[in-house]
Amino acid sequence: MINRKIRMGMIGGGQGAFIGAVHRIAAQIDSQIELVCGAFSSDAERAIASGKELYLPESKCYPDFNTMMAEEAKLPEGEHMDFVAIVTPNHVHFPAAKAALEAGFHVLSDKPATLDKNEAIELAKIVKATGLKYGLTHNYTGYPMVKQAKEMIQNGEIGKVRKIVVEYPQGWLATPLEQTGQKQAAWRTDPKRSGAAGCIGDIGTHAENLAEYMTGLQIDELAADLTRFVDGRLLDDDGNILLRFEGGAKGILHASQISVGEENSLNIRVYGETGGFEWHQMEPNTLLVHKLDQPTQIFRTGNGYLGEAATAHSRIPAGHPEGYLEAFANIYRNFAADIAADLSGEAAPAYAKDYPTIEDGVRGMAFIEAVVKSSENNAAWTKL
Amino acid sequence: MINRKIRMGMIGGGQGAFIGAVHRIAAQIDSQIELVCGAFSSDAERAIASGKELYLPESKCYPDFNTMMAEEAKLPEGEHMDFVAIVTPNHVHFPAAKAALEAGFHVLSDKPATLDKNEAIELAKIVKATGLKYGLTHNYTGYPMVKQAKEMIQNGEIGKVRKIVVEYPQGWLATPLEQTGQKQAAWRTDPKRSGAAGCIGDIGTHAENLAEYMTGLQIDELAADLTRFVDGRLLDDDGNILLRFEGGAKGILHASQISVGEENSLNIRVYGETGGFEWHQMEPNTLLVHKLDQPTQIFRTGNGYLGEAATAHSRIPAGHPEGYLEAFANIYRNFAADIAADLSGEAAPAYAKDYPTIEDGVRGMAFIEAVVKSSENNAAWTKL
Amino acid sequence: MINRKIRMGMIGGGQGAFIGAVHRIAAQIDSQIELVCGAFSSDAERAIASGKELYLPESKCYPDFNTMMAEEAKLPEGEHMDFVAIVTPNHVHFPAAKAALEAGFHVLSDKPATLDKNEAIELAKIVKATGLKYGLTHNYTGYPMVKQAKEMIQNGEIGKVRKIVVEYPQGWLATPLEQTGQKQAAWRTDPKRSGAAGCIGDIGTHAENLAEYMTGLQIDELAADLTRFVDGRLLDDDGNILLRFEGGAKGILHASQISVGEENSLNIRVYGETGGFEWHQMEPNTLLVHKLDQPTQIFRTGNGYLGEAATAHSRIPAGHPEGYLEAFANIYRNFAADIAADLSGEAAPAYAKDYPTIEDGVRGMAFIEAVVKSSENNAAWTKL
Amino acid sequence: MINRKIRMGMIGGGQGAFIGAVHRIAAQIDSQIELVCGAFSSDAERAIASGKELYLPESKCYPDFNTMMAEEAKLPEGEHMDFVAIVTPNHVHFPAAKAALEAGFHVLSDKPATLDKNEAIELAKIVKATGLKYGLTHNYTGYPMVKQAKEMIQNGEIGKVRKIVVEYPQGWLATPLEQTGQKQAAWRTDPKRSGAAGCIGDIGTHAENLAEYMTGLQIDELAADLTRFVDGRLLDDDGNILLRFEGGAKGILHASQISVGEENSLNIRVYGETGGFEWHQMEPNTLLVHKLDQPTQIFRTGNGYLGEAATAHSRIPAGHPEGYLEAFANIYRNFAADIAADLSGEAAPAYAKDYPTIEDGVRGMAFIEAVVKSSENNAAWTKL
Repeated sequence: MINRKIRMGMIGGGQGAFIGAVHRIAAQIDSQIELVCGAFSSDAERAIASGKELYLPESKCYPDFNTMMAEEAKLPEGEHMDFVAIVTPNHVHFPAAKAALEAGFHVLSDKPATLDKNEAIELAKIVKATGLKYGLTHNYTGYPMVKQAKEMIQNGEIGKVRKIVVEYPQGWLATPLEQTGQKQAAWRTDPKRSGAAGCIGDIGTHAENLAEYMTGLQIDELAADLTRFVDGRLLDDDGNILLRFEGGAKGILHASQISVGEENSLNIRVYGETGGFEWHQMEPNTLLVHKLDQPTQIFRTGNGYLGEAATAHSRIPAGHPEGYLEAFANIYRNFAADIAADLSGEAAPAYAKDYPTIEDGVRGMAFIEAVVKSSENNAAWTKL
Repeated sequence: MINRKIRMGMIGGGQGAFIGAVHRIAAQIDSQIELVCGAFSSDAERAIASGKELYLPESKCYPDFNTMMAEEAKLPEGEHMDFVAIVTPNHVHFPAAKAALEAGFHVLSDKPATLDKNEAIELAKIVKATGLKYGLTHNYTGYPMVKQAKEMIQNGEIGKVRKIVVEYPQGWLATPLEQTGQKQAAWRTDPKRSGAAGCIGDIGTHAENLAEYMTGLQIDELAADLTRFVDGRLLDDDGNILLRFEGGAKGILHASQISVGEENSLNIRVYGETGGFEWHQMEPNTLLVHKLDQPTQIFRTGNGYLGEAATAHSRIPAGHPEGYLEAFANIYRNFAADIAADLSGEAAPAYAKDYPTIEDGVRGMAFIEAVVKSSENNAAWTKL
Repeated sequence: MINRKIRMGMIGGGQGAFIGAVHRIAAQIDSQIELVCGAFSSDAERAIASGKELYLPESKCYPDFNTMMAEEAKLPEGEHMDFVAIVTPNHVHFPAAKAALEAGFHVLSDKPATLDKNEAIELAKIVKATGLKYGLTHNYTGYPMVKQAKEMIQNGEIGKVRKIVVEYPQGWLATPLEQTGQKQAAWRTDPKRSGAAGCIGDIGTHAENLAEYMTGLQIDELAADLTRFVDGRLLDDDGNILLRFEGGAKGILHASQISVGEENSLNIRVYGETGGFEWHQMEPNTLLVHKLDQPTQIFRTGNGYLGEAATAHSRIPAGHPEGYLEAFANIYRNFAADIAADLSGEAAPAYAKDYPTIEDGVRGMAFIEAVVKSSENNAAWTKL
Repeated sequence: MINRKIRMGMIGGGQGAFIGAVHRIAAQIDSQIELVCGAFSSDAERAIASGKELYLPESKCYPDFNTMMAEEAKLPEGEHMDFVAIVTPNHVHFPAAKAALEAGFHVLSDKPATLDKNEAIELAKIVKATGLKYGLTHNYTGYPMVKQAKEMIQNGEIGKVRKIVVEYPQGWLATPLEQTGQKQAAWRTDPKRSGAAGCIGDIGTHAENLAEYMTGLQIDELAADLTRFVDGRLLDDDGNILLRFEGGAKGILHASQISVGEENSLNIRVYGETGGFEWHQMEPNTLLVHKLDQPTQIFRTGNGYLGEAATAHSRIPAGHPEGYLEAFANIYRNFAADIAADLSGEAAPAYAKDYPTIEDGVRGMAFIEAVVKSSENNAAWTKL
């Protein structure tokens, strides 16, 4: 064990940003990581003001991420940051990650990895060339019950997977919110900052990642029907997709931002030859487990009957609900453990390798590209 | 008001049949209909034994439906049956309905209306020519909360409908049950008795009917991916379908009989511009009602805030759950009220016209045909 | 098997009554019972009009129950009624049951059995003396999942019972509804027609009966705190009760009619040494089953893993919800089977003895008396 | 705003402790507090080892809390700790709090405040005399939806409160776990370390605090029936209590640690003249809101329709579940804001005064004492 916390710099996440605060909580909840510096905004003045609010000395509030790389690289190990958290809008993910890796820092990036698939492939090459760690906050796979289902599938407890239904309905963009100046809506519906897809890029990729992570199966081809329901919107706000997985499993993925009344209702059902699962992000501590001809069982976090993976990713006893921030924190905790093991030269715990990587990032961009292409071709089957 | 119950004859539904008993309960629960005769089995001996168990005199237990038509037609009004309930496997629906209509009797048939679309079109002609009533037990639209949602959509309470997600997962055919001699599984997986589709014909049509009934929108085209997961099965046991409705709404319909752990989980979500609904058949007394920027409301049967349609289709106060049999009975009750109004010459109540007709039957067969065709063409878009 | 339906006469349940219609549906849903006569109202004219609406000949619509007894007693077996269903307000239960039994007819009575405990004891003597059958429609114990829990407790599957929490909150009397002329509210809040207790007599007794039926344990003593929350109300509209059962189990029973937002939310939780149960009347097809250190299981009606009792009391496959009327009907079905077995001289099925009797009726009245006495003594412990 | 985090010392919470880790997460999740020192164990060696695991310098890992007080008091403001978090077993709460206050440090203590009521009264005097801040982690009142209900009650949205049902069932002590050496079970069932009550002291007080906090009403008197179900146990493991509140509201409180299958199922229902609430700790982001004659509404955290209090106590948008740790953190966040306002001389935000104080602590001890006394007197009514 190294005798210090892992040191984090942050790019983006200044005043007014939502996801930056989430990353900071997730990073620090387990007291294994400390925020040591940041380039919190593309506006230098706001960057510094933001850092001061976080109790950082002004000298550690950099005006831009290139300066941060240059300055931190000058410091010795133990004084410079160990890794960079990237929490900007999508179009900055690639240049920021590239700069950090090339300056010798590990990267933990918000998703999607990049703005398009080509960038993602390029980034994968850089990660490989530098030998540094790259993690991606597909945070929904950080939930303990997702890991429980994954482990049970790996153990053959539901037989061969036949069908997967994964959904991600939201309702917050049912009206043209981006035309009101709402910041979150504005960049997510802007192709220049968000990429080729709207709803599918923002949340559809989470659904894709969840389905593939939980089942261990990859989508082979898909047929997608995207829609822009709200007048004047530039990107899709709803998508319905048929899936065919390698090995014969079939599936459905649908995501929406115009489903009035839905908050953030990511959920998944998996059916195998002899059993199945149902899990809902909004009540994440429960996993329904089906077995042929038996009563459905309610698995709950924190109980002794759970497997190693679920146990390693919850903090408190049964009946004490953990939520979104703790799932998010699991990715940070694991990523930090991976770095710490390298620094100390000690063996890492099993969970230290359980976080999404650039391979997931490439796959997510391939998914977006295939969905958009399929939809442009009237839902023609399209390979990933 | 006529001073007697409406008289029902039954075709099929003898010993060992499941759905026949359901129809008899549904018909008699409100004491507006009495069973007066039947041709309960294609086996004459069993037909008579079945009738005796139902306390019918042997003279009213006919050996086959043609005999029943002939004998009943000889009796005067008020002594002969008023209508025939057809509760046989699918391939008998058409000949039985045809015989009854041509003998002058109204028909209430289990679904699907016929074995294929051509038969359905032919049957529609016969119904029109005879001027008799024809009802179809798409029983799930008999639930009060389905009618509540329909009424609210008609009243514009959720704005223009944008998205419909309708599901019908079951798990009872996850294994090759039909190879064990189980009667229900055997005929449902046999193309000669069930028709061109398995899962889609048996339950997918209920989902289609529910979606169109509730929203008042018709499916314009669809893209379907059917699968036979169980080795040796002759018909689809799972189907995933993209929907495009007239007027621009999009949708998803999936049905399955291999979804282990699912019982009979028909459910629907509808999203409009300003609101939405969620309803589950297995907890049918609850309707979730979404409105933009407001808390979701839990509408429950039997309450004073419900509209006319829901109120007219429940029997007991709030908190006293009604179920499948009562919803099924609503179709019988309405059909009987329609006949009674004709017999008495009095005005019928509004609900007397609220039951599925041969038009729904034709539409259901068109749906099955389009789904099968689309799937054979690798999920190509196919018009209904 | 006798070759006819069991013949029922009805006392009460004329136009405008709620519970009479429920009893008629419950009696006839399984086609084992037919309504043959009635004294439907204390108003002779309305009694006849009510009977005609039910398609009875005028000669079978008696002006009062004494006339009905006298006339029916003149008819031979197979033509007279076999039993009487009593569905009047509480104060008529005793005289009607007495008259029927003394005239030689079996009785199935709505609960409570009588207006007070003395009447109940008197009635028990009459039942014993006549040797006739007496059933009581504590209908909530007719639900299949209640029987499943009872059977599992009997089989020792949760060990010795330690704690029972049974609740029956309603909200419909949160305002002085009886002062508006609402009929159901008026007699239930009138001591002359309802008895010494309001809420506790009307619904508290259902909770008591459910707890004792499911666990097989009897309440030994109780401490009750009754309240009249609504100004001007003559009887309790809320009660909180501590329970001590024979053998050491402890419990809580609370019932309320002023719990705004609650419909008819009877529910029970039972905890034993090694397991437990949770059941809710409003979603009655589900039984949660707890076992030490294991995931909670969701038992559902209609599944093969259920025991004999649950199976014998449901009609349709898993996933097809049954409700209040079917549970109510189970009492009628069982009572009719008991009569039919006697008439035919054949062995009755096990379920034919599974209905509440006059012993349950006496116990219910003892419960009411003890609750009222305890509350008058500032919640002093009071033996039943 | 002061330009630094608030500095926390910790007493207890060394290796192997559960609640210490919870407090550290809760304190640091919002990055407003930093852990600067601790006396983590009564074993000096373990105290130091525990501190090092938390990345504290050895000089800040004190061997006992008296040393910590003495040493920290020597440091100037901004370098010494600002407050002490006490996370020991119950019997240490009082001496530790006393020592800290007398040394000039604010105190945030785990509950119950002390081992008995006399200690609590004594402590209240010390708090008053020193003028320092004292907070108590009745963490369940930190949930946003609890605050939403409180605010709506204060605003008169459900009228005068009539009935309160508050429950806290657990099942983890259904067997004699304390006899296996399990540390959490051992001290909680030991009167010397836990106090006069077991289940009621450990969790019953949370229920009491929740009911009084949410409704703003105080319990006037109670009648309690405590039980020790597990052989050899020294303290109650189950309690059923009738409540009478000031102003006429009635209630039930029951808590249990032998309710097999229950995890940590604290829940509350409140009914007023015109509305009501239902809230469950295990799904804490949902609040059911009842209004007379209207559909029940599902209020959910993070939505714009919520009031100020709920909004001020959640961190992330609707649909992103927050849980136990975030609710716990709300108390720390508020307590730290209260200290920070004093330090800076600026006005505190409204939420800075929203945490449980020594008055709640005294009240909790009075509750325990009254419950134990009532139970010893066979559930006689006992004033708080």
